[in-house]
Amino acid sequence: MKNTSLNQTFLYKEIFEQPAVLKRLISQEVNEINILVQAIREKAITQVVIAARGTSDNAARYAKYLFGAVNHLQVALATPSLYSIYRRPPRLYNSLVLGISQSGKSPDIVKVIEGAKQQGMLTATITNYPQSDLAQMGEYKINLHAGEERSIAATKTYTSELAAIALLSATLADDQSMLNVLEKAPSFANAMLELAPLAKDIAQQYQEMRYCIVIGRGFNYATAFELALKLKELTYTMVEPYSSADFLHGPLAVVEAGFPVIVFAPSGAMIEEMKALLDTLKQRHASIIAISDDTEILKAAHIPFQLPFSVPEWFSPITSIIPGQLFAMHLAYWRGLDIDNPRAIKKITETT
Amino acid sequence: MKNTSLNQTFLYKEIFEQPAVLKRLISQEVNEINILVQAIREKAITQVVIAARGTSDNAARYAKYLFGAVNHLQVALATPSLYSIYRRPPRLYNSLVLGISQSGKSPDIVKVIEGAKQQGMLTATITNYPQSDLAQMGEYKINLHAGEERSIAATKTYTSELAAIALLSATLADDQSMLNVLEKAPSFANAMLELAPLAKDIAQQYQEMRYCIVIGRGFNYATAFELALKLKELTYTMVEPYSSADFLHGPLAVVEAGFPVIVFAPSGAMIEEMKALLDTLKQRHASIIAISDDTEILKAAHIPFQLPFSVPEWFSPITSIIPGQLFAMHLAYWRGLDIDNPRAIKKITETT
Repeated sequence: MKNTSLNQTFLYKEIFEQPAVLKRLISQEVNEINILVQAIREKAITQVVIAARGTSDNAARYAKYLFGAVNHLQVALATPSLYSIYRRPPRLYNSLVLGISQSGKSPDIVKVIEGAKQQGMLTATITNYPQSDLAQMGEYKINLHAGEERSIAATKTYTSELAAIALLSATLADDQSMLNVLEKAPSFANAMLELAPLAKDIAQQYQEMRYCIVIGRGFNYATAFELALKLKELTYTMVEPYSSADFLHGPLAVVEAGFPVIVFAPSGAMIEEMKALLDTLKQRHASIIAISDDTEILKAAHIPFQLPFSVPEWFSPITSIIPGQLFAMHLAYWRGLDIDNPRAIKKITETT
Repeated sequence: MKNTSLNQTFLYKEIFEQPAVLKRLISQEVNEINILVQAIREKAITQVVIAARGTSDNAARYAKYLFGAVNHLQVALATPSLYSIYRRPPRLYNSLVLGISQSGKSPDIVKVIEGAKQQGMLTATITNYPQSDLAQMGEYKINLHAGEERSIAATKTYTSELAAIALLSATLADDQSMLNVLEKAPSFANAMLELAPLAKDIAQQYQEMRYCIVIGRGFNYATAFELALKLKELTYTMVEPYSSADFLHGPLAVVEAGFPVIVFAPSGAMIEEMKALLDTLKQRHASIIAISDDTEILKAAHIPFQLPFSVPEWFSPITSIIPGQLFAMHLAYWRGLDIDNPRAIKKITETT
C-alpha cells in the first residue's frame, strides 16, 4: 500500500470532496425538505424514530440531540430486530420514522420503514440512492448527492447525512440563523481540510497505538462514535467511544499512564464538562489528544489538535469529524494498510 | 490481593447473594408494581423514556427490547444532557419516564425525572434506596431490595433491575406464564452459580487477554454491554460490546487470527443469527467463547461455556449474565487485582 500515493486513494479523494458534496446537498434538497417539513406539521408529529447502522447510526446519534434541543422532539433509535427477527414491533404514535443508510440496502432497516408504514406513520429516508429498496419503501426521500462512495470507510456520506439532518431541523424550526450557518458549511469544511498536514504529524506520533478511547458528549457524542468507527475500520485499532458521563460510570478504570484518549471539545455549552474531564484524565496520566478551538482545553492536552475557527456547537459535528477522518486516514497510511479496502468488511452490509 | 481469599470479597458474596435478592424483589415489589401498572393504564401511556448510566443503562437496554416485544411500547433512552446542560429537553407526550440507578444519586438522571414531572408525565424509579434524591423525585418507587452493594462493580443490583423490569412488563401484559417463569428466577440463578469452577478454568486460559469483543443481540444486547462493563471495571481489559448486526457494519475489521470474541447465544429467535455470526468469526479465525445452551453453537465455539438449562429468551438476560460475572471476577483474581476496589472509580458516580 505504501507504493500507492495517498492522494490517489478513493478515501483521500472522498474526504476532499466533502465541501462540494455539502454544497450540492444544501442547494438541491431544499425543496424535498420543505415538503417533508410541511407533512411533519400537518401530521402533528411529536416524536422521531430512527433506524440506521454503522456510520449512519452515528448520524442518528446527532439527530437525537439536534431534534431534541432545536425542535423539542423526543427521538428514539429503533430496535430493528423487533421488526425483522422477533416480529413484535412497538406500536407507534404520531411518529416520523426515518431510515438513514448510504446504500439503502440493509434489509433490517427496510423492515423498520415497512413496519412503520403498515402502522400509518409518516416515513422518510436519507440515502445516497433514491432508487434503493429503502428509499423506495419510504414516503419522503432526501438524497445525499454524494456521488458514488468507493472507499469502504464512509466519509462524505457521513457529513452529508449530518447536514441533511441539520437542514431538516433548521427548516422545521424555521430558524434563519441556523440556515445561514449551514450555507457556510462548504467553506467551513474546506478550512478543516487544511488540517491534513497536522493530522499526518499526529498520526505519525501515534503509529504504534494499539487501543484508545474517544470522548464527546451532547452534540459531539456522535463525533466520538464516528471517529472510533473510522479508526476501527481503517487502522484495526481497538477503540471505544463514550460520552464523558458514561465514561466516568465505570470504564475510566481501564485508563493507565500513557493510555491514549482523544477528546472532542469544540466550544459551547459542553466545554466546562470537557475541562473537568481533562482534569480527571490528567490525574490518571492519560495521553490526551484534544480536538478543540478552546485555548484552555488545548493548553491542557498533550497533543493540541487546534480547530481553525469557532462555530455554533450544534453545527460543530459536521466539520469537527474532518480532522478525525484525516487522522484515521494518515494513521492507516503510516501503517501501510490498504486504505480503500479494509480487511473483512464490504461497502454494503446487509443484515437481517 | 492474591492473599485475600476470593470468597471473602464483597464481589463474591454479592454475586452469590443474587438468588436471595431476586426472591426478595419478586415477593416484596408486587404491590408497588401493580399500582404503577394501574397508573400506566389510566394515563394511556404509549411510550417509555428511560434515564440511566453505567450498569443501570444496560438494564435500560433490556427494557427497550422487553417493553417493545411484550408490551408494544416504543422505548427511548433519554439524553440527560438535554435536560441538565443544554436545558432544552424534548417535549414529552403520554410517556412513562423511568429513572434507573443503584444509588439514586446521579444529578443528571434526577434532572430528567424532574423535567418529566414539570411536563406532567408519569414518573417512576428503580433504585436500591427509596430515600435517595432520584426515588424522592419520582412518583412511583420500585425498590431493588438488594441490601447494601459494597463491591464497586455492580452485580446483584443489575440482575434485580432486570427482574424489576421483567415484573413490570409481565404485570402490564397480564401474562401469567411470564410471571410463573419469574417466580423461578431465584432457582435458575442458583443453578447458574454452579458454573463458578468452569468460569475459573476459562478465566485462567484467558489470563493474558488484553482486549476482546462481546456480542449479543435482541434481548441479550444488554448482556453483552454488561459483561463488557464488568470486564473493563474489574480487569481493565479493553472490551467492546456489539449487537451482531452493528458489528458487521464495520467493526468486524478489527478481528484478526486469535482475537477473543465472547458470544451470548441462549436459545430463542436470535439463534440462527448467532450461528451465522459464528461462521463469519471462524472465517476470521477469531478465538470464540460461546455462552449458550444450544448444542450447535457450543460445538462451533473454541470454548463452549455451556448454560445448564434452557429458559425463554426474554428471561435469559436475567441469568445469562451470571456466568459472565463469574468469568470477570475470576479473571481479576487470576490477575491479582483488587476486586472490590478497582482503580479510578467510585461506587457512586455523580455526573451532571
